[in-house]
Amino acid sequence: MLLQKIPSLNQLVHELSRLPGIGPKTAQRLAYHILRSPNDFVQSLRDALKGVKERIHDCPLCYSFTEEESLCHFCNDPMRSTGMLCVVEDPADIERIESSGVFRGRYHVLHGAISPLDGIGPQDLKIQALLDRIAPETTTERVPVTEIILALDADLEGDTTVLYLAKILKDMNIKTSRIAHGVPIGGDIDYIDYRTLGRAIENRVQV
Amino acid sequence: MLLQKIPSLNQLVHELSRLPGIGPKTAQRLAYHILRSPNDFVQSLRDALKGVKERIHDCPLCYSFTEEESLCHFCNDPMRSTGMLCVVEDPADIERIESSGVFRGRYHVLHGAISPLDGIGPQDLKIQALLDRIAPETTTERVPVTEIILALDADLEGDTTVLYLAKILKDMNIKTSRIAHGVPIGGDIDYIDYRTLGRAIENRVQV
Repeated sequence: MLLQKIPSLNQLVHELSRLPGIGPKTAQRLAYHILRSPNDFVQSLRDALKGVKERIHDCPLCYSFTEEESLCHFCNDPMRSTGMLCVVEDPADIERIESSGVFRGRYHVLHGAISPLDGIGPQDLKIQALLDRIAPETTTERVPVTEIILALDADLEGDTTVLYLAKILKDMNIKTSRIAHGVPIGGDIDYIDYRTLGRAIENRVQV
Repeated sequence: MLLQKIPSLNQLVHELSRLPGIGPKTAQRLAYHILRSPNDFVQSLRDALKGVKERIHDCPLCYSFTEEESLCHFCNDPMRSTGMLCVVEDPADIERIESSGVFRGRYHVLHGAISPLDGIGPQDLKIQALLDRIAPETTTERVPVTEIILALDADLEGDTTVLYLAKILKDMNIKTSRIAHGVPIGGDIDYIDYRTLGRAIENRVQV
């Protein structure tokens, strides 16, 4: 094979195929494209890779990604209600929630979910930071947090984390909710799995 | 949006989405993955990108990619017939032909195909180099090239290039053929377009 005879091309294919959703064939097509691209494109791609690792860090309050000196854009935004927190697993989830345009409060990123099978417990997540943020003794917020929306994934890890947090937050007298599960907008009931449909029926909304 | 507030993440998404087959959503998913990856993965990806541009160059005989000092692996291989050349558009095509295991001659890479609409003429391709390689006065091959297989794409540009080369090679008394068009192995005739099917009937093979 040609590829095996060109170690540096082979190496690039290997590195690219470590990215999620990039199989060996796609990696090969990308590598050949990169090889044919002008030097300045490759240079700007390399600079961009360096940039994200050097300039982006966690916001010390909500643990989302930011390039700001201290707090991130959302934590600094005076137009956002500080009394309402939306808890997500990853910073990328904020992007999705923002695109819905429905939520105008602040965020808190756990950086994962509780997963005993993978050895990930509450202490591996930003859960203590969340509790410090809402407890009256330790909070740095000007307005106390009164409501928390848990926007975690609808899988086993998300469910476990919701159960864990709900118990603690109930003891702290914080109004806690979880985003609804149900039939997606535009979804055809024929194609919805029975567990989603069961949940959609349980959580039916009066019309 | 979160992304717009983090310029270096936005920049990486922009660079990634310039790659073929990577849309804005995939670029975003990859960028978030890269941001969460360990530093040494990002460093090895950056090194691999640098490596392909620095170490790989065109083989001076067949114009495929190589890291060798002078001639590429195929041009240097004494087990390959030098009398037979397979002409391809891109180095990646060699990979595909090699995987068939049928061809054991040498290659010549044109680096594209004639495309008047894109302003690409014969002088922009490695066609003169091909003619120098086979003409008895200019060749550096020990054994003269007697047969050429044109393995160009089955599109307008490929067809144009085949017509152009066939005329010149005929005048040089070189046996020239083009790879066959027809129904792919495992292909269902119901799903084959009428032009391919027409070509398959024209080029029918006696059984």
